[in-house]
Amino acid sequence: MLQLHIGSKNYSSWSMRPWVLLRQAGIAFDEVLVRFDSFAADSQFKRSINAISPAGKVPVLVDGALVVWDSLAIAEYLAETHADKRLWPGDPHQRARARSICAEMHSGFTALRRHCPMNIEARLADTGALIWRDQAAVRSDMQRLVQMWSALLQEHGGPLLFGAFSIADAYFAPMCMRLASYALPVPPPIADYVQRVQALPGVRAWIDGALAEKDFRDFEEPYRLRPIP
Amino acid sequence: MLQLHIGSKNYSSWSMRPWVLLRQAGIAFDEVLVRFDSFAADSQFKRSINAISPAGKVPVLVDGALVVWDSLAIAEYLAETHADKRLWPGDPHQRARARSICAEMHSGFTALRRHCPMNIEARLADTGALIWRDQAAVRSDMQRLVQMWSALLQEHGGPLLFGAFSIADAYFAPMCMRLASYALPVPPPIADYVQRVQALPGVRAWIDGALAEKDFRDFEEPYRLRPIP
Repeated sequence: MLQLHIGSKNYSSWSMRPWVLLRQAGIAFDEVLVRFDSFAADSQFKRSINAISPAGKVPVLVDGALVVWDSLAIAEYLAETHADKRLWPGDPHQRARARSICAEMHSGFTALRRHCPMNIEARLADTGALIWRDQAAVRSDMQRLVQMWSALLQEHGGPLLFGAFSIADAYFAPMCMRLASYALPVPPPIADYVQRVQALPGVRAWIDGALAEKDFRDFEEPYRLRPIP
Repeated sequence: MLQLHIGSKNYSSWSMRPWVLLRQAGIAFDEVLVRFDSFAADSQFKRSINAISPAGKVPVLVDGALVVWDSLAIAEYLAETHADKRLWPGDPHQRARARSICAEMHSGFTALRRHCPMNIEARLADTGALIWRDQAAVRSDMQRLVQMWSALLQEHGGPLLFGAFSIADAYFAPMCMRLASYALPVPPPIADYVQRVQALPGVRAWIDGALAEKDFRDFEEPYRLRPIP
C-alpha cells in the first residue's frame, strides 16, 4: 500500500497537493500525519521526516522500498504508475501546458505564498484587505494567477482547469484555500472555480481534516494570537 | 525547429539547464538569446519574454504553436518527445529519484542560490570563503547537496549522478558552476564530479558562450564593481 507522509493539514500546502490528488483520483493510500511541532533540527517533525527522506521535508511518498519526495515528483510518479487515472491531460500539448503551470506554481508566486500562508481554519478577510492594499507583489502574483486560470477555464469551458480533474487542480487547490481565507478580490468566474475546487470530494475531505486538527502553531500564525474558539 | 529562449548565459542559471540538456543530448534547436538589461516591466527583456510566454520568465521552449515554460516542464516535454534519448533514467525507481532531486533543486537550496548567484565569468574564492564562514544556511544547503551527490555517485559508480548523462546532471550543472566560482569546500569525489560536469561538451559550450558575452550587469553583481579586464 502506498504511504503518504504529510504535515499538519491546516497549514501544509505542499502536503495538500498529493493527498488531494490521491484521494480525488481514488488511489488507495495510508496517510502518515506528522504534525508540525517546530522545524528545528531536534523537533519531532524533523526527526520523523529525516528518518524516511533525505530532503527532510513533507510530503513524502513511500512505495515499498522506494521513497519519492517533493510534491511534483510524487505527482509524476503517480501519473506514471496509474496511467488509467489520466492524472495529466491526455493531449501532449495540454499536458505540457499543465506541467508548465505546475512548475510555475512550484517555484513561483512567492509574494502570495509569503504574505498569505495557508491557514484553512482562519478567517482573515481584513488581513487580506490590508495585504491587497499594501503589497504590490501580491497583487502582481494575483494578476498572473487570474490570467492563467481565466485563459484555461475559457479555453476548456471548465469545470476545472483542463476540463476534467487533473494534477493541475490538485496543485492549485492550496491557492484556492488562500484566496478564500484572505478573501482576495477576484472576478466571478475565478470565484466560481475556487468554489468548485473546494467542493471536490478530495478537497472537502482535506478541509474537514484540517478543521478537526485544532493545532494552533505560533510559527505558522503571523496574523493570529489564538484559534477560533 | 525547436526554439529555446534564454537569458544571459553568464547569469541565467535556469536557462542553462534546458540548453545544456538539448545540446548534450544532441537535439537540434535554435537559440534565442534575450540578454538581461533589467527586470523592470518596461525593460527590453521583459517585453521580449512577455510577448511569447504568459509567465514572463526564461527559459521558454517554443515548438510550433506550443509554448512550454519553466525548466522542469521543458525537461519533461523533451523527455516525452525524444524518448530515444533516454533523458530520464530508464528504471522507474531511478526515474522517480531523479525527479525527486530535480524538484528539490527547483524549489530548494534557496540560501545557496541567494548568496552565491551564478556568475560564470567571476572568480569569487574570497567571497565564497566569507559566505562559508558566516552563512549557516549555505553550509546546510551544501551539506545536503554533498550528501545527495555522494549517495548517487556511490550507488551508480559514476561518472554522472545516475551513471550516464540525464536531466539530473543538466539540472545541477549551474550548482557545479557556483561551487567552482565561489570555491566552496567539498570532498574530492564531489570536486571530481564538478569537473566532469564542466567537461561535458554541452556544458563546455555554454561556458564558452558565457565567457564571450562580457555583459556586466550591476543587478546580478552583488560582489563586483567591474568585470575581469
